[in-house]
Amino acid sequence: MSWTLSQRAQKLTSSAIREILKVTERPEVISFAGGLPSPDTFPVERLRAKANEVLTNDPSPALQYGPTEGYVKLREWIATRYSTGATRIDPQNVLVTTGSQQALDLLGKTLIDSGSRVLVETPTYLGALQAFSLFEPNFVSVASDEQGLQPSALTPKLLEGARFLYVLPNFQNPTGRRMPLERRQELAKIAKQAGLLVLEDDPYAALSYSGDALPTLLSMLPDQVVHMGSFSKVLAPGLRVGYLIAPPEVHRKLVQAKQAADLHTPSFTQRIVYEAVKDGFLDTHIPTIRALYGERCKVMLEAMKEQFPQGVTWNEPQGGMFIWVQLPPGVDSFKLLDQAIAQNVAFVPGGPFFANEPQLNTLRLSFVTVPPEKIRRGVAILGKLLRESIATARVA
Amino acid sequence: MSWTLSQRAQKLTSSAIREILKVTERPEVISFAGGLPSPDTFPVERLRAKANEVLTNDPSPALQYGPTEGYVKLREWIATRYSTGATRIDPQNVLVTTGSQQALDLLGKTLIDSGSRVLVETPTYLGALQAFSLFEPNFVSVASDEQGLQPSALTPKLLEGARFLYVLPNFQNPTGRRMPLERRQELAKIAKQAGLLVLEDDPYAALSYSGDALPTLLSMLPDQVVHMGSFSKVLAPGLRVGYLIAPPEVHRKLVQAKQAADLHTPSFTQRIVYEAVKDGFLDTHIPTIRALYGERCKVMLEAMKEQFPQGVTWNEPQGGMFIWVQLPPGVDSFKLLDQAIAQNVAFVPGGPFFANEPQLNTLRLSFVTVPPEKIRRGVAILGKLLRESIATARVA
Repeated sequence: MSWTLSQRAQKLTSSAIREILKVTERPEVISFAGGLPSPDTFPVERLRAKANEVLTNDPSPALQYGPTEGYVKLREWIATRYSTGATRIDPQNVLVTTGSQQALDLLGKTLIDSGSRVLVETPTYLGALQAFSLFEPNFVSVASDEQGLQPSALTPKLLEGARFLYVLPNFQNPTGRRMPLERRQELAKIAKQAGLLVLEDDPYAALSYSGDALPTLLSMLPDQVVHMGSFSKVLAPGLRVGYLIAPPEVHRKLVQAKQAADLHTPSFTQRIVYEAVKDGFLDTHIPTIRALYGERCKVMLEAMKEQFPQGVTWNEPQGGMFIWVQLPPGVDSFKLLDQAIAQNVAFVPGGPFFANEPQLNTLRLSFVTVPPEKIRRGVAILGKLLRESIATARVA
Repeated sequence: MSWTLSQRAQKLTSSAIREILKVTERPEVISFAGGLPSPDTFPVERLRAKANEVLTNDPSPALQYGPTEGYVKLREWIATRYSTGATRIDPQNVLVTTGSQQALDLLGKTLIDSGSRVLVETPTYLGALQAFSLFEPNFVSVASDEQGLQPSALTPKLLEGARFLYVLPNFQNPTGRRMPLERRQELAKIAKQAGLLVLEDDPYAALSYSGDALPTLLSMLPDQVVHMGSFSKVLAPGLRVGYLIAPPEVHRKLVQAKQAADLHTPSFTQRIVYEAVKDGFLDTHIPTIRALYGERCKVMLEAMKEQFPQGVTWNEPQGGMFIWVQLPPGVDSFKLLDQAIAQNVAFVPGGPFFANEPQLNTLRLSFVTVPPEKIRRGVAILGKLLRESIATARVA
């Protein structure tokens, strides 16, 4: 046929992760590749009861078209949850999205022109790179270390003309890193001075294994932060209910973009989420998720310590779903993946998470959906393959 | 603040219709403005039973992340429904979308570059103009009459370099017009010769008041048609489940674009829809919607005949949700709307439905959510205002 795709479509590719996930759907595969929460954490009974309630008590609005901004009671609940101490969040600034991924698409649409400078962490969330890429930005990778993004790297030269900084301060995907309080304060200070818009993507905030959550960037700089959150990791991702909180001027444009994107997020699922969370349910539910993930993380870290050879390093996450592994220079994690899949173990190579200059000797491990015995078995297989790869890399 | 919005965001505006709908939410307003289906048609009991079933029989996949392409059983059901006689639709070519509106966004992303020629009817669906506009096309309005788009207007010069033609052959929004069989065949022939991609938007196909549905453009030219459908008008829009059927090359790009847009449509609502429709339910349900809408349409047409002054003309739809009204030249329907709202009656002015050169002496009436008594009362008020407006226009 003679039709022509748009330039952006010609550059589009499928996420490397989703392609890997297809391979690893075989039941015999031990998969550390997923970013999926454990279905053991889904509050099935409660969601069923709430779905039933919603379609019994007031079915019409749950089945009818609704406002683009979202279900007003859910917006109010979200605003209240983020209003702490001195910071009061206005429900008017909340927009309910069809999962957090949609927030990224809407932000790309409203903030990125072709060639716009966009600052991201090194590495950063692949789904954000995908969503933003459609609008053809010029990505700038900001130096990052074990504690996340380094505020000192945000020099005036680097900030010059940047549309925004995109950052995941809590248990980042892919690294599991958390930005300490001091860095958050320093980042907020720099952003304020420079008038820099900051997109704070925060789906894992609640998943701290111990201790309190650290203050959000939103709480430090409410006029300049777009905060993204989600019910995917604390209730269930299949409902596709996320949200964002944005300064009024940006919020208004995001609402208009959402109207064109899908009119609104399903009225039904928004109401189920609201009914499920409105009376404090998450305060008892989230600790059970933390306990499960914390235990599995511990099992994986112990197995790695035992099985992984010298020269391989990793972080010890304090929350979230991921561990980030650094291999010795010259060991390519894509090649390692081929070998691992042949032995029915899967993970995600780190390369695709870099906006520029991929570090091919990195990989992401997720432990949340795998039972302890399988974690140990899978890590032992990876350990053996790593020893072989490192030996080969030395010879070569 | 010093941040910069994208150029496309700076041009974004809210839908005129959604702004009007906000005004007309007051219970005392008789609103012919909505494009909402009647909640009387929602099969509440059935959807509640199915939601309960889904979360009882196999809850995990309904609450977990799912494939971007959609729930495989629903895709198979859709493909089967569109496979008639000689045309077999492959489930691989189906993509489930978050309402039909999302299909428009994905098509805009994958097919439109800045300045691309895009052919549309005169007038056409406002939501499509909104979705496509984000990608800055050059809209070309193709001549249309009482029978919809005129294929004879599709001259080689007009077709030159067009990315696609966007058309709603059944009970079009806003006009309620249906394209007759001969025009469909002629259009398919021209599109085939020219290698023109045709986007067939078809949410109202099932809502024919009498007689069989006409063949789709998809059935005539499956290799060159992207067909969009929806469960919003035959089940419930609050579930936000739509779909598209596209040739493989386009389908692949649409899937990649959807991955970045919202990962996938909610697993839960997709399963509810599938369970609700899988055993032929729509074959008994749709006739009840047709009967209700057909009756209300008849009441409105009778009232218009009685109340509207000479010089005002309209069509008599054979299905769908809308009547299109032409006022005498010089009568501005936006001004009429102000007067009508002051008397608690609302409709949608026709101007925003034109991609180029708006005809301001047009308006859209919807009858589906208004009981007969209120239809008569509202039409009587409009008739009186029209007589006054026409008298004023003559004097001026």
